[in-house]
Amino acid sequence: MTISAIVWGENIHEQNNRDVASHYPDGLHGCIAAALNTDTAIEATTATLQEAEHGLTEDRLAETDVLLWWGHAAHDQVCDAVVDRICEAVWSGMGMIFLHSAHFSKPFKRLMGTSCNLTWREAGERERLWIANRNHPITKGLPDSFELENEEMYGEPFGVPEPLETVFISWFQGGEVFRSGLTYKRGAGSVFYFRPGHETYPTYHDGNVQAVLRNAVHWAFNPQPRVADITVGRNVPAERAPETIEQRGPVLHSDGKLDAG
Amino acid sequence: MTISAIVWGENIHEQNNRDVASHYPDGLHGCIAAALNTDTAIEATTATLQEAEHGLTEDRLAETDVLLWWGHAAHDQVCDAVVDRICEAVWSGMGMIFLHSAHFSKPFKRLMGTSCNLTWREAGERERLWIANRNHPITKGLPDSFELENEEMYGEPFGVPEPLETVFISWFQGGEVFRSGLTYKRGAGSVFYFRPGHETYPTYHDGNVQAVLRNAVHWAFNPQPRVADITVGRNVPAERAPETIEQRGPVLHSDGKLDAG
Amino acid sequence: MTISAIVWGENIHEQNNRDVASHYPDGLHGCIAAALNTDTAIEATTATLQEAEHGLTEDRLAETDVLLWWGHAAHDQVCDAVVDRICEAVWSGMGMIFLHSAHFSKPFKRLMGTSCNLTWREAGERERLWIANRNHPITKGLPDSFELENEEMYGEPFGVPEPLETVFISWFQGGEVFRSGLTYKRGAGSVFYFRPGHETYPTYHDGNVQAVLRNAVHWAFNPQPRVADITVGRNVPAERAPETIEQRGPVLHSDGKLDAG
Amino acid sequence: MTISAIVWGENIHEQNNRDVASHYPDGLHGCIAAALNTDTAIEATTATLQEAEHGLTEDRLAETDVLLWWGHAAHDQVCDAVVDRICEAVWSGMGMIFLHSAHFSKPFKRLMGTSCNLTWREAGERERLWIANRNHPITKGLPDSFELENEEMYGEPFGVPEPLETVFISWFQGGEVFRSGLTYKRGAGSVFYFRPGHETYPTYHDGNVQAVLRNAVHWAFNPQPRVADITVGRNVPAERAPETIEQRGPVLHSDGKLDAG
Repeated sequence: MTISAIVWGENIHEQNNRDVASHYPDGLHGCIAAALNTDTAIEATTATLQEAEHGLTEDRLAETDVLLWWGHAAHDQVCDAVVDRICEAVWSGMGMIFLHSAHFSKPFKRLMGTSCNLTWREAGERERLWIANRNHPITKGLPDSFELENEEMYGEPFGVPEPLETVFISWFQGGEVFRSGLTYKRGAGSVFYFRPGHETYPTYHDGNVQAVLRNAVHWAFNPQPRVADITVGRNVPAERAPETIEQRGPVLHSDGKLDAG
Repeated sequence: MTISAIVWGENIHEQNNRDVASHYPDGLHGCIAAALNTDTAIEATTATLQEAEHGLTEDRLAETDVLLWWGHAAHDQVCDAVVDRICEAVWSGMGMIFLHSAHFSKPFKRLMGTSCNLTWREAGERERLWIANRNHPITKGLPDSFELENEEMYGEPFGVPEPLETVFISWFQGGEVFRSGLTYKRGAGSVFYFRPGHETYPTYHDGNVQAVLRNAVHWAFNPQPRVADITVGRNVPAERAPETIEQRGPVLHSDGKLDAG
Repeated sequence: MTISAIVWGENIHEQNNRDVASHYPDGLHGCIAAALNTDTAIEATTATLQEAEHGLTEDRLAETDVLLWWGHAAHDQVCDAVVDRICEAVWSGMGMIFLHSAHFSKPFKRLMGTSCNLTWREAGERERLWIANRNHPITKGLPDSFELENEEMYGEPFGVPEPLETVFISWFQGGEVFRSGLTYKRGAGSVFYFRPGHETYPTYHDGNVQAVLRNAVHWAFNPQPRVADITVGRNVPAERAPETIEQRGPVLHSDGKLDAG
Repeated sequence: MTISAIVWGENIHEQNNRDVASHYPDGLHGCIAAALNTDTAIEATTATLQEAEHGLTEDRLAETDVLLWWGHAAHDQVCDAVVDRICEAVWSGMGMIFLHSAHFSKPFKRLMGTSCNLTWREAGERERLWIANRNHPITKGLPDSFELENEEMYGEPFGVPEPLETVFISWFQGGEVFRSGLTYKRGAGSVFYFRPGHETYPTYHDGNVQAVLRNAVHWAFNPQPRVADITVGRNVPAERAPETIEQRGPVLHSDGKLDAG
C-alpha cells in the first residue's frame, strides 16, 4: 500500500531570497517531497500557498494520508476556510506533520489550542538533536543524537500542550534547549511537530532529517477509513438507547433539530 | 486570599423556556455563582452573552482568576475577538471551567484543538458519576460515586485530546458512558471540563455538583502573576545568547522585525 | 513479516473448575492463541505457570515480539526472576498485553508502579465496551460499542497511572464503569491492558474480543531491534563529550566503576 | 497548616569523602532540610539509611506529607519492606520528591515501572536549567533559566515514562540535554523528579535549587486524608450493586475470599 503525502510549502523565500533559492531551487517543498519519494512506500506531491485554495481542495485532502506543512512569512495569508478543512481532515484521520516555523501557522495553533510561543535566534549555530524516546517508530535507524552544524535556535519555554510523546530534544550551541520532536493525537489524526528546517540552511538535505521525515510519514499514516461527520453531534433518542429506558421530564430539543446535545 | 471567579451564562433558555426558568429564576449563572459564594475564599460574579463584550472586557478578564462557562443555544453569537481574549487569558494563567454543553462553545473548541463531538439523548435518565482519580483536589469531600436522577446523556466517543487527568467517568441508565471530568493545561492556565448541567434539570442545585465546582475553582486558580506577551515570540540575538557564540551564515531577519522565529 | 506472540496462561482454573474447563478445554491460553493464529501475520504459541521458568526462558523471550498474560489465582507463584526478565524485555522493545485479572499480576504491577486496585463483582451481568478513541489501531473494524452478555464487573477507581490513550470504557449493568482498554509505553515497549475475560464466561470466544486481541498484537509489535543493556547507565567521559570541555572539580567516580551516574 | 516533610539521605559519601563533607558537614539531607525549614509552612526533619528501618517506620510515614529522597552508592542496601511501605504511602496520598541519583533508587524504579536509565559524566561542567512549563507551581519565583556552574551531566535518553508535565529541561556544556524536572501521579500521590544535586558540588546551597525544592514540597502536598486499604480489591456483591441486578451464571468466588477480582 502506498502512502499518499502532500508537502505544502509557502514558497515565498524561495522566490525572493538568494540564499534560500540556492539551497532549494525546487522550493523547500520540492526538496522535502523528493526526499520522501526515495521511499517507494510513499508517494509525495506538493502544494503551495499561491495555488487556488492553496492547492488543498476538499477532494485532494480526502485522498491524502499525510500532510506536511512548511510556512514562515505568510501565515496570515492562509485562508480560514482551508484551515477549517485541514483540521477536519486531521480529526477524521489524516496525519499531519508540522515543520520548523510552522509552529506559528494557523493549522498548528488551531490543533494545539495554545500560543505556540517560543524564543529564537538566527545565528547559524550548532544544533544537536537527542532521542528521548528510544525505538519510537519516528527514530528508526537513527543514532542516539545527530548534529546540524548551522541552524536557527528555537528555545523553551515552548507554548504547546504536554505532548503524547517527547521524541527529540535539541541542544543549541548558544545555550538553549527545545523539545524538537513532539507527537499529538487530534481525533483520529496523528500530529508530529519537528523543529529543524530554517530556510537559509541546507537542513532538508541532511540524511538524518530526511530519515525522520520518512519515518514520520509512516507513523502518521492511519490506514483506517476516515471518520464521517466528525463535527456533527449524534442524537440517540430514548427508543434507540442500548438499554431500555423511558422518556422522563421536560424536553428542550422537542424537534430533534439541535445537534449539539 | 480571595479567588475571583466569573460565571458566564448564555442566559437564553432561562428567558424563553418555562422549565428552565423554574429551576433557575436567577439564571444558571446566578445559581452557580451563588453556590460558589458559599465558599468564603471565592468571590464569584456573573457575566452574560447579552452584555457589551459579553461582559468580558480586557480589564475584567485581567482581574479574573477563574472563568466558568455555560452555553448551549448560541455558541455562534459569541464574538471571535472575545474568544481570542479569553484564550490569551488562559494561556497566560487564568483558570477556566467548561460546563456541560460548553463542550461545543468556541473557547472550548479553540483550547482543545479538536471536534469536541459526542452523542447525546435528552430523556431525563439517571447518571452516576464515578471518581477515577482518588483524592484529586477536585474530588475533595466526595464519595466514590454520586447520582443525578435526571440528566441528559452524553456518550463516548468524546472528541477531545487525551486529558492530563481523567477525574470522573459517568454511567448512564440508557447504556452509555462518558468521561465527565477532564483536566487540561493550556499554557499557564488550568482547564477543567465537567459534564453535568442540562438546563431542564435542577443539576446545579445538587450538593455534590456544587462541591465539584467549588473544588474546581480552587484547583484552577494560579496565584502567580500572568505571563506577559504570551503570543509574541522573543528574539535572543547572538550577542545576548547565554553562551558565547559568533554569528554565522546568512540572516533572513536582518532587521530583527519578525517575531515569529 | 510474522509477529511472534506468546500467550501465557496460569492454567489453574481450567484444571480444577468444571465451568472454566467447559468453555476452555484447551485452556484460556489455548483459546486465545488459536484466535490470534487466525491472522496469518501472527504466529502465537503458549506458555504456562507450570512449565520450567514458566515457559519464559531468556532465549524464548528474546525471540518474542508480543507477550499476552492471563493470570488470576496464583500471581504469587510467578518467580521474581522471571518477572524481572519480562520487564527488561518490555523496556527493550517487547510488546505486552495484560488480560482481565492480570491487573494484579506481578509484571503489571511492576510496569505500572501503582496499586492496580479496583472494585469487582462476579454476577454474570452485561458489559458494554465503548470506544473512546476512534480509529485507534486497536479498534480497527469494531463498531462504536459491543456487548458481552455475561461478565464479571470491574469498577473505578482503577489504580493505574493516567494512560497514554484511553481506548475503551465499559458500562456495567449493575451501575459501574471502568477504563477497559488503556495503552502505556514503558521504555521501548508498548503495553496494553484489556479488561474482559473472566474465566467462567466464554468471553474469549467472542468475535469482537478476538478482533481486539489481534489488533493489539499488531499495535504492540515494535519491529526495531531490542535496545541493548537497558538497565546499565552509560558513562560518557569528558574526552568523549560531544562538545569540547575540560575536566573540572573533584571526581567521585575516579575509577569509572560505578554505572549509576 | 504546616507541611510535614522528611529528607531521606543515604549519608555515606558525607562520611567517607572529604569533598562531599566539606560542602555538606550536616549531610546532604541536613542541608536540604535546613533549606526547606526557611519556609515557615514546612516542617522538615531527616532520616538516613543507617537508622532502624532507615528511619521510616510505618507510624512516621503515616504522619509525613512529603518525602524527599537522596541516594547514590547504596541503593541495594535499602530494605524491600521499607520500599513497599513507601510505595503504599505514595499511592494513598503521600507526596514524594526524588533528587538526582535517586533516579536509580528502589522506590523510584518501583514507582516508574521502567529502567530509569540515562547517560552521565562527572566533569564539573556547566548546567543550565530551562523552564518548559511557565507558571507551574514548582517554578514559582524562578527566572526562565538558571545556571549551576559545576554539575554532573545526566543525558537523554532518560528511561522513564512520559511524564504528566515536563517542568525543566537541562542544557549541558558538554553537549547533552536532560528532562530535569518531571511530574507524575501514582495513585493519590504526586511525584516529582529533580535532576541536579551531585554530592561533590555545592548544588543544594544554590538559591534557585532551594526554591525549587520548597515549591515542590508545596506542590506535592495532598491535604486530603490518606486512601485506606490501597492494595486491597473491594468486592461489591450483586445485592449491593448500585443498580438492581440478579446474580447470573457460575460463580468462582463462592466464598467471597478472593480480593483480586
